[in-house]
Amino acid sequence: MGNLDALNAFLRQSPLHQWLGCSIVAQDEAAGSVDVLLPDRPELHRGADSAIAHGGVVAALADIAAHAALHAKVGHGLPTIDMRLDYLRPATLPLTARATVRRNGQNIGCADVEIIDCDGKLSALGRAVFFTRSTPA
Amino acid sequence: MGNLDALNAFLRQSPLHQWLGCSIVAQDEAAGSVDVLLPDRPELHRGADSAIAHGGVVAALADIAAHAALHAKVGHGLPTIDMRLDYLRPATLPLTARATVRRNGQNIGCADVEIIDCDGKLSALGRAVFFTRSTPA
Amino acid sequence: MGNLDALNAFLRQSPLHQWLGCSIVAQDEAAGSVDVLLPDRPELHRGADSAIAHGGVVAALADIAAHAALHAKVGHGLPTIDMRLDYLRPATLPLTARATVRRNGQNIGCADVEIIDCDGKLSALGRAVFFTRSTPA
Amino acid sequence: MGNLDALNAFLRQSPLHQWLGCSIVAQDEAAGSVDVLLPDRPELHRGADSAIAHGGVVAALADIAAHAALHAKVGHGLPTIDMRLDYLRPATLPLTARATVRRNGQNIGCADVEIIDCDGKLSALGRAVFFTRSTPA
Repeated sequence: MGNLDALNAFLRQSPLHQWLGCSIVAQDEAAGSVDVLLPDRPELHRGADSAIAHGGVVAALADIAAHAALHAKVGHGLPTIDMRLDYLRPATLPLTARATVRRNGQNIGCADVEIIDCDGKLSALGRAVFFTRSTPA
Repeated sequence: MGNLDALNAFLRQSPLHQWLGCSIVAQDEAAGSVDVLLPDRPELHRGADSAIAHGGVVAALADIAAHAALHAKVGHGLPTIDMRLDYLRPATLPLTARATVRRNGQNIGCADVEIIDCDGKLSALGRAVFFTRSTPA
Repeated sequence: MGNLDALNAFLRQSPLHQWLGCSIVAQDEAAGSVDVLLPDRPELHRGADSAIAHGGVVAALADIAAHAALHAKVGHGLPTIDMRLDYLRPATLPLTARATVRRNGQNIGCADVEIIDCDGKLSALGRAVFFTRSTPA
Repeated sequence: MGNLDALNAFLRQSPLHQWLGCSIVAQDEAAGSVDVLLPDRPELHRGADSAIAHGGVVAALADIAAHAALHAKVGHGLPTIDMRLDYLRPATLPLTARATVRRNGQNIGCADVEIIDCDGKLSALGRAVFFTRSTPA
């Protein structure tokens, strides 16, 4: 794998990803990381009066980015085993999620995610664990 | 607090909740629990070929339900500190999230969530931690 | 598997478990749960002035109990993939950890743990995920 | 705060820390990080045949190091709200835990931990959340 077009073609197979309009905008193969951009849209807001993302949207973005980082390594889709999010401060859209593979084992993979808001501030930390074999979990 | 109409009026203030069409369909005040229903819609699907929810959607629903359970106790909105999700099996929409308060402290609250899929099967477990004071975190 | 003597014989193979003096004091095979008792000893205290357990001791107990619950199901040792602890209130020794299997899949298992302190109060919640195959992770 | 002697004097007030023999061996104030060394001792072993640390010991070390990193910032002890551990590979003692503050808010703090084994390999990742006010949680 490796080029952004191929990674984004895979990413866009998911109806959720299509609706969100998210895309992989950068990849660092040496670091095992990808950057996923989530554009602003009003349906993703926590409240009616600002472009602060709902915490559930931040969580969904973290899952998407962590999966994309591992997918770029292993070349197939992977079931998420678990995920955790730490919310550091309100995250105003658009958001960028930088996901970095921390482990790519025979069975288990782990990726860290940093959620960066529209002002470049770190807004949340994510960590997700995946089943990396190509057979079902 | 306490009746479903009031709880749902608060829930629907969020543009994300409006778009998702989720609602609180049951409350057990003695148990400290609420049930949140998430209807099916194609944009929430993981893949194009089934109504299996994207993992990020399951995470968002868990956050919404855990917050609703604590909101029903304390009567105001609360910032999420962190959240974790364990995915047990694919979750076909519509989904019901049952959230139960495990702690409602002066500063910190914690709620557990069970995600039940359209066939009544337990599909995921969530746990979320909130700042319960009415002042900002 | 199934009887407490066999489960405890396995448990005591670990030097840490021997030193802690922990043991499985109850098993409910239908519920998939075990109770692990951790006796008081001064080296486990958080501070010098009380028998409140150090948070790291609570975490270790949760790991031990979750592993014991899954071991009782699958009959062999399992590597922990990840674990999380939520501390609800200070936990005075001796402690009892009740661990219940929530998933026992072909590859992945998950167990919940409740830490009960010497007064019967819920002091902490744990959740741990294991690799359930008998081959290395 | 700041020098290692003062930090270690505080650390050693805990009977568990005394028994473990752990100590802060380095501090980087600019990075908000501390390194905590855990020496080998047989009671910490997972099995009788090697110096691989029990997973519960790794968890305890992560809690200790994360707390030490935040304590070095705020100058008082803090209750742990929650903690999570991801085990990447078996960790042979002695271990070093490098904890780095990711958030030091008015109410909530968060620190990341990397557990490095005797061969310099990354063995586990931890993340812990604390209540940072000097009043009880």
